[in-house]
Amino acid sequence: MTTTQVTLVQIDNYGPWTVTPEPRREMDLQTLQSRLFADIAEFLGHRDGYAFFTRFDNMIAVTNGVDGDAHATLQESIGNRYPVTISLGTAVSDRPVDALEAANRELQHEGSAQDAGRTEVLAGEYLTETAPTDVQIAHFDVVNATGKYTDRLNEFDTFINIEQAYASLMRYLREAHGALSFFVGGDNIIAVCPDLPESAFTEAVDHVGGDVDVELQVGVGRGATAHEAGFAAKHALEDCRHDGTSVEMIGTPAASD
Amino acid sequence: MTTTQVTLVQIDNYGPWTVTPEPRREMDLQTLQSRLFADIAEFLGHRDGYAFFTRFDNMIAVTNGVDGDAHATLQESIGNRYPVTISLGTAVSDRPVDALEAANRELQHEGSAQDAGRTEVLAGEYLTETAPTDVQIAHFDVVNATGKYTDRLNEFDTFINIEQAYASLMRYLREAHGALSFFVGGDNIIAVCPDLPESAFTEAVDHVGGDVDVELQVGVGRGATAHEAGFAAKHALEDCRHDGTSVEMIGTPAASD
Amino acid sequence: MTTTQVTLVQIDNYGPWTVTPEPRREMDLQTLQSRLFADIAEFLGHRDGYAFFTRFDNMIAVTNGVDGDAHATLQESIGNRYPVTISLGTAVSDRPVDALEAANRELQHEGSAQDAGRTEVLAGEYLTETAPTDVQIAHFDVVNATGKYTDRLNEFDTFINIEQAYASLMRYLREAHGALSFFVGGDNIIAVCPDLPESAFTEAVDHVGGDVDVELQVGVGRGATAHEAGFAAKHALEDCRHDGTSVEMIGTPAASD
Amino acid sequence: MTTTQVTLVQIDNYGPWTVTPEPRREMDLQTLQSRLFADIAEFLGHRDGYAFFTRFDNMIAVTNGVDGDAHATLQESIGNRYPVTISLGTAVSDRPVDALEAANRELQHEGSAQDAGRTEVLAGEYLTETAPTDVQIAHFDVVNATGKYTDRLNEFDTFINIEQAYASLMRYLREAHGALSFFVGGDNIIAVCPDLPESAFTEAVDHVGGDVDVELQVGVGRGATAHEAGFAAKHALEDCRHDGTSVEMIGTPAASD
Repeated sequence: MTTTQVTLVQIDNYGPWTVTPEPRREMDLQTLQSRLFADIAEFLGHRDGYAFFTRFDNMIAVTNGVDGDAHATLQESIGNRYPVTISLGTAVSDRPVDALEAANRELQHEGSAQDAGRTEVLAGEYLTETAPTDVQIAHFDVVNATGKYTDRLNEFDTFINIEQAYASLMRYLREAHGALSFFVGGDNIIAVCPDLPESAFTEAVDHVGGDVDVELQVGVGRGATAHEAGFAAKHALEDCRHDGTSVEMIGTPAASD
Repeated sequence: MTTTQVTLVQIDNYGPWTVTPEPRREMDLQTLQSRLFADIAEFLGHRDGYAFFTRFDNMIAVTNGVDGDAHATLQESIGNRYPVTISLGTAVSDRPVDALEAANRELQHEGSAQDAGRTEVLAGEYLTETAPTDVQIAHFDVVNATGKYTDRLNEFDTFINIEQAYASLMRYLREAHGALSFFVGGDNIIAVCPDLPESAFTEAVDHVGGDVDVELQVGVGRGATAHEAGFAAKHALEDCRHDGTSVEMIGTPAASD
Repeated sequence: MTTTQVTLVQIDNYGPWTVTPEPRREMDLQTLQSRLFADIAEFLGHRDGYAFFTRFDNMIAVTNGVDGDAHATLQESIGNRYPVTISLGTAVSDRPVDALEAANRELQHEGSAQDAGRTEVLAGEYLTETAPTDVQIAHFDVVNATGKYTDRLNEFDTFINIEQAYASLMRYLREAHGALSFFVGGDNIIAVCPDLPESAFTEAVDHVGGDVDVELQVGVGRGATAHEAGFAAKHALEDCRHDGTSVEMIGTPAASD
Repeated sequence: MTTTQVTLVQIDNYGPWTVTPEPRREMDLQTLQSRLFADIAEFLGHRDGYAFFTRFDNMIAVTNGVDGDAHATLQESIGNRYPVTISLGTAVSDRPVDALEAANRELQHEGSAQDAGRTEVLAGEYLTETAPTDVQIAHFDVVNATGKYTDRLNEFDTFINIEQAYASLMRYLREAHGALSFFVGGDNIIAVCPDLPESAFTEAVDHVGGDVDVELQVGVGRGATAHEAGFAAKHALEDCRHDGTSVEMIGTPAASD
């Protein structure tokens, strides 16, 4: 079984801020958003967590091993250095989507994301310890994306293909397993999963191939933290690339049988 | 008619770099990518261009008014400050996708995106002047996204809805009109368009509503640069929000009739 | 007695890099250096350490409570995201300058700062625990700097006064007590001290007043980490401002007598 | 004769902000300040200007070739992305210190640097064109700094030597010639000068040698902008390093005699 700690990072009252007193320059917003995400990815990454940009005004993170004090430090530091503040809701569950659901409710209970009086909420619960196989991460990419797409099509048509694969995979893994999948650039998708066997990943790859005709491969890893699990998944994906296989699993209970 | 100058920004040989000598920590890559994009957005934004993160290893920008010297400065500056380098291909056309296609070919002719010997390509052609209605930008968002999604669903399920809307819109506008649409965070999508009438936007909104059941509204603007057009579009979108309309156009030749 | 853990951060072979193959643009170097420092300050600051920019190619940090694993993470992360790498030497002593001296030797033993083969050294020793009064920090500023200087003189002449005060204080505290003093912007100087009584700070303030005719005030704090001690020092300095006193001490063994 | 355009960048009401409602974490302030400076250095550097961090809350820039619109863009962009705002005063004179003095008065006339009601001042005058020898830059460094200091002394004692050299040079060049000198990291000092002959630089090097016993060398360049002049100065300094000379001048009217 997995035990995933998920943190929802929400910029407080961001939408109204972006148009007050009148719309702000779009590239200033893009610069602000991407640097804010970079800071959060850096902060959590150095503590072996993973952060995903998602919609930028709402970001989702896997934070096994990151305690409440660290969350408070992050919130204070952002508040000191940005023109906006963030709220953080954290929860734990075996299914990632259930952890997110609970984390999300912590913020929703306090008020709307666009309630000017609801700022810097810090709520939820944190794991007191980590265990070696708490987190399962699957790292997907597209088989020969450079040869098939990047070097042949224009970038937007390449992107359409990657986007359709992502849209298909994210919905499938959410509905079938309560997993949370994130596009992380290039042709890479990282899925935070509950305890899934190899067959589930084969089915996911098959689903996307049938649905939008994009061929994926996936490395799957397990660890005490997102970084540990994700790093094993990256190594497993390297095995796919070298061996021409579709699914490789490393460090998982099943893999060690 | 529109005249759009499009620049493709491609990180040189990035995929191999991310796994050499072994896979690099994912959050270091995320931090690197998002800060690199932020720098490019800041640089081009200050020259009234727009940059979109797209796949992060390949970014697409609208650069009317940004000349070849400025592109060279950007390339040199990134090369001095990052562990990776970038290639830049630029081209001009009335349809954005045609400009991108030509910009992209400038790089593809020089070699593969994963060719270690093909670095810091700077190629293409630049407009020598700008004209007041050269660029048309449409800024879409989701009607009452906070009330319908953010405050009610968990963030991932909200994101699925936004993603499906984006996947639907990006494909539709590409195929119907050769427009390039980019998710820019929150519930916002910015489309770089050829010369389109109001009816085309009504049809796009209707298409997405019918396809994935998400209700969009859109402000459309026109200007000499991406910023000018995009800023007008933002103001038009504010009109939609206040007046409850689906499509508003500002600063366009049709609007001034 | 104090127990200070000091880390020397040195960019590997930086001087030659800045002029290879020919001199790089100065503002690219300034941007690189200040962002690299910002990342290190953020990383250590979130772990209750203090980092000082010093000469930017060599930075000095107080790292009580930051262990060897965290130092390794910082080094790896910088290596993944910058075109340069860093070496880190760490040591512990009761006098800050002795800790720095030992930390510095760890790197010097491995080769020159401009030896292309000496990269990413990670050496030294780390405290296994922290104690409540291990670190003493003194936070100086100039009495009424805005009224006397900033609002009356041109900025460079103001800066000359601040610089002379800093040059005088840094040398005095180094020679008299083995303390390490750093200009941190505005009219602020932070000194990392051994166990010093109130009279030592009165003498330092008097020395600078007599030497360069700039009137300082100072808050002194004590804590288990640089942040704890420095935060107490900031509060003590607020007391100086409100009460018109020259030296205030908080949280120090002497203060609690 | 030189014609130098100088811009004073002042963070509005920064001191009070750093302690409201209570003192903010020092490393958050350091991170904020150095990233703000990095953004300004990047912005102006890409327009061939030079920015210097000086006291961080007040920064001095040489902005020949950067017009009022660009200054307005910078101010707006910082205001959109930081929790603080900046004021900008700009002026032109043959002597750099006179330009700064006039630029500074533009802000002082509007109110105190710590007046909460005086924000985002944008004032002054800008050159309408640049001329090939408007700016003279001298780039100093310490002869064999790595061998004499960095590899032999502890970093703080090295820094004391560099600081004393800087304090001596900055004061000398200010008083003798109205030049503005800035430490830019490592063992490098950049001086923005009026029209000075080679003998003036020889005297400056001699002064510092006699005053604090640190041996400097200097490359001097001339150009239409800070970058052009500074780049020539860097090349001239390379000549000093290779030829063992103390002063080299490139691109100056005298040099071309």
